[in-house]
Amino acid sequence: MKTVFKPIGVVRSPFKRAEDIALERNADPCGFDDVRGKIEVYEEYDAGLKDITGFSHLIVIFAFHESREAKLLVRPPLESRVRGVFATRSPHRPNSIGMTVVELVRRKGRTLYIRSFDMTEGTPVLDIKPYTDRDRKKNIRLGWLERNQKRAKCGKM
Amino acid sequence: MKTVFKPIGVVRSPFKRAEDIALERNADPCGFDDVRGKIEVYEEYDAGLKDITGFSHLIVIFAFHESREAKLLVRPPLESRVRGVFATRSPHRPNSIGMTVVELVRRKGRTLYIRSFDMTEGTPVLDIKPYTDRDRKKNIRLGWLERNQKRAKCGKM
Repeated sequence: MKTVFKPIGVVRSPFKRAEDIALERNADPCGFDDVRGKIEVYEEYDAGLKDITGFSHLIVIFAFHESREAKLLVRPPLESRVRGVFATRSPHRPNSIGMTVVELVRRKGRTLYIRSFDMTEGTPVLDIKPYTDRDRKKNIRLGWLERNQKRAKCGKM
Repeated sequence: MKTVFKPIGVVRSPFKRAEDIALERNADPCGFDDVRGKIEVYEEYDAGLKDITGFSHLIVIFAFHESREAKLLVRPPLESRVRGVFATRSPHRPNSIGMTVVELVRRKGRTLYIRSFDMTEGTPVLDIKPYTDRDRKKNIRLGWLERNQKRAKCGKM
């Protein structure tokens, strides 16, 4: 079985390429809070944006368009050991699908102004979903990330 | 541009079909907390599961395999009005991709025992990612869902 998807929009980002993202951002839960950009939704999907401005946060499902190679073991940035790819957010995955929760700042027509994301310029957007209470989990354990991540309170988030 | 994905595993669920899911569960942020099942990861992706048991919660990206029709306006369960599809979690989407955050109970070989999900039997799994601090947002607004959802504290979650 193969599943074929077609982008519904595109990301405009200050990160022109993955290499533009300072590695230190990844180790910081608040590392992307200051990043602003937008999603341009294609005209044919305009009607699907109805009611979206009621939500403060959106789940964006996208294609890692810069990913070229699927790996099962990856060495995350600033890490010395390899990790199982499903225990990382690496773009080099069997299916190069990314997911990020962004803050919706405002909507203007088919353009969604967003904040707090790590997607690069030209990223194809596959889906947009509202972020709900069911996506918020408490008492989480972070495995190998635990040692690396600061458990900071991020600004107003 | 089209993007082709191939399942990395399959869901075993107590819900044999979407119709088996009581509509009331959707209106309750804790409505799926008691649901237990598993993900069987295919043999060729086994190595990618290394380190996964350190994480308490996983993001599962899947295909809505029962979805047949893409709509831009949908009428959610128990709702009287239509909503833009990107402001809902409806399976009837331009790209039939689902996302749910599950609790990882334990791993046995290539089988992940999971809890708290709304996927149905046979759901093709496209990706598994660790749930991290960056996926936890506070002070969220829920738009049209606000009126419907109980903002309950769910069990130990």
